[in-house]
Amino acid sequence: MAESFVHVEPGGRIVFGPGTLDRVPDEVDLLGIGIGRVLLIATASARDDADLLEVGLGDRFAGRIDGVRQHVPIEQAEVARAKAAEVDARGLVALGGGSAVGLAKAIALTTGLPIIAIPTTYAGSERTPVWGLTVDGRKSTGTDPVVLPRTVVYDPLLSRRLPVTVTAASVANAIAHCVEAIWTPKADPLTEVVAIEGARTLRAGLLGVLAERTDLEARSNLLLGACLAGSALAQAGTGLHHQLCHLLGGQFGLPHAETHAAVLPQVTRLLAGNVPRAKARMEAALETEDLATGLFDLFQAAGVPTSLGELGLTEEQAVAAAKSFDGQVSVDQLTDLLVRAWSGRRPEGTGR
Amino acid sequence: MAESFVHVEPGGRIVFGPGTLDRVPDEVDLLGIGIGRVLLIATASARDDADLLEVGLGDRFAGRIDGVRQHVPIEQAEVARAKAAEVDARGLVALGGGSAVGLAKAIALTTGLPIIAIPTTYAGSERTPVWGLTVDGRKSTGTDPVVLPRTVVYDPLLSRRLPVTVTAASVANAIAHCVEAIWTPKADPLTEVVAIEGARTLRAGLLGVLAERTDLEARSNLLLGACLAGSALAQAGTGLHHQLCHLLGGQFGLPHAETHAAVLPQVTRLLAGNVPRAKARMEAALETEDLATGLFDLFQAAGVPTSLGELGLTEEQAVAAAKSFDGQVSVDQLTDLLVRAWSGRRPEGTGR
Repeated sequence: MAESFVHVEPGGRIVFGPGTLDRVPDEVDLLGIGIGRVLLIATASARDDADLLEVGLGDRFAGRIDGVRQHVPIEQAEVARAKAAEVDARGLVALGGGSAVGLAKAIALTTGLPIIAIPTTYAGSERTPVWGLTVDGRKSTGTDPVVLPRTVVYDPLLSRRLPVTVTAASVANAIAHCVEAIWTPKADPLTEVVAIEGARTLRAGLLGVLAERTDLEARSNLLLGACLAGSALAQAGTGLHHQLCHLLGGQFGLPHAETHAAVLPQVTRLLAGNVPRAKARMEAALETEDLATGLFDLFQAAGVPTSLGELGLTEEQAVAAAKSFDGQVSVDQLTDLLVRAWSGRRPEGTGR
Repeated sequence: MAESFVHVEPGGRIVFGPGTLDRVPDEVDLLGIGIGRVLLIATASARDDADLLEVGLGDRFAGRIDGVRQHVPIEQAEVARAKAAEVDARGLVALGGGSAVGLAKAIALTTGLPIIAIPTTYAGSERTPVWGLTVDGRKSTGTDPVVLPRTVVYDPLLSRRLPVTVTAASVANAIAHCVEAIWTPKADPLTEVVAIEGARTLRAGLLGVLAERTDLEARSNLLLGACLAGSALAQAGTGLHHQLCHLLGGQFGLPHAETHAAVLPQVTRLLAGNVPRAKARMEAALETEDLATGLFDLFQAAGVPTSLGELGLTEEQAVAAAKSFDGQVSVDQLTDLLVRAWSGRRPEGTGR
């Protein structure tokens, strides 16, 4: 092994289990946030749970922002920061998916306020110090330890009724965090373990949800897998796969989670051969003979679109995207990759 | 899985690889410790490396404590704290095994000074917030985040020449952290992954060192495994096994690392059956059909004493220890367990 690496563990507190939403007030107190000082940020789809949470917070509650937009537009961030100042917030509680956590991070970035995150999807951003802001339609991202949620409350009851299509796309996104974490420049043996366990747990959860949508054990596995996937992403950072999804989302407005399912098997076919040990371990975890085709088949079985064409991209746009990409692989390789992703060809023969 | 748990990730920075001792000065600067403000604590056996490190620290160096005693006697801690005050230290660099790190923790406990740890054994305490102090021959321990080293520099060149017997005993200690982490009350699925990977990596490293003592890949594996083992211990805490080793060490002065090798297989025989999933995964990682006998055989192959009798304990003392233990198992079970550990019987049939 004799390799060298620098690994930063972000730290943080994780409260996991069915019904843990009820423990949020105690977690607020543990952070010493104080009476009348909690700003609650809730995604529209979690309004009922947010109402319950507001009641539970009692006199700790200071104010609430309902409804969050994707990709954290700066206008929304500024309104939210003003609201935090207006109510003299000393802590943020974010209930929702990546967008709710993202808005809380935008406030934390300028105020240093601590975040308690309660994820309702499998995006994993609650475990990363990465923030994003969209200004004039352009998204910029950065890393700052101050935006990492201090506490994450994972309550599998909250995501129990998520529709299967939404679930499957969100899981594809989370699996992408795990798989890419084995080949980025910052990948290391400590992250590899987390990434492989994340993928194993996500697959088990996904198969469980496909069998029975509200199965609590399956939902627990998905949330635990999302936690591991977010941790892997935080440590390994992003590589070619995430860069391509970002480019396709920005240029052509493709939906974030679904894009992952179409692109990941093809990027895996190109890159996984470079990390043979991790590839073999990931294959064992996903119970497949070949990582790229195994991912493709898993996403197909889950009903996630595995071609960019299905998402509305044209072949010409796929070729144009390959040409506009400034990265570590040749235009020819990338064109081949994106045309495969566009057509949704099963990626036979990883790294051969 | 639908289980519930609270998991605290301590955080921290890990710099890993052959030759990373040379990067300690940069790590000092990264923590903002400043010129003339580093107190170096070095175990006697690492004197040559400490000399090199002192030169490398240059004008950052403030003072040095050479030689550390086991179990951190309060007298030594007080001398060290006075030294830290005298040189106006703003940071501690600890080079050595658990005792060097332990002395640095004793200073940090009262001063809050940040620690950079450079482990030369596989004890793993550099990854835990646990401190210990011995007053009037009685060791007390506690947990405080302030004593967790901010940065750990793992340089496998430093432990490359550790004698095989010392290596094997230290590895048995580290493996005990991993194995016990699957059944303590604070064990959880996130810790389980770390513990299992730790055991896998430690076994690979141990077998490598038995084949070739100075093999760098094997030494890297041992250090990486120790890092994982320390992390698992930090998260899962201790259980019956560590409590028994503590008792035997305190009452009869048995050597710490060696005691683990004799006791662990017997405790595993008693307790591993309670956690069947983790047991099966640990068995796969250690490539054995049965965890208790697998551990016993591994320690025997490594030449570590697997009976307390070999360490000088009498059967009467083993029985007396069982009677004096105030814990969660019956005196009969414990007597049986310790007499087995005393005689070194191969523990056939885990949890049956």
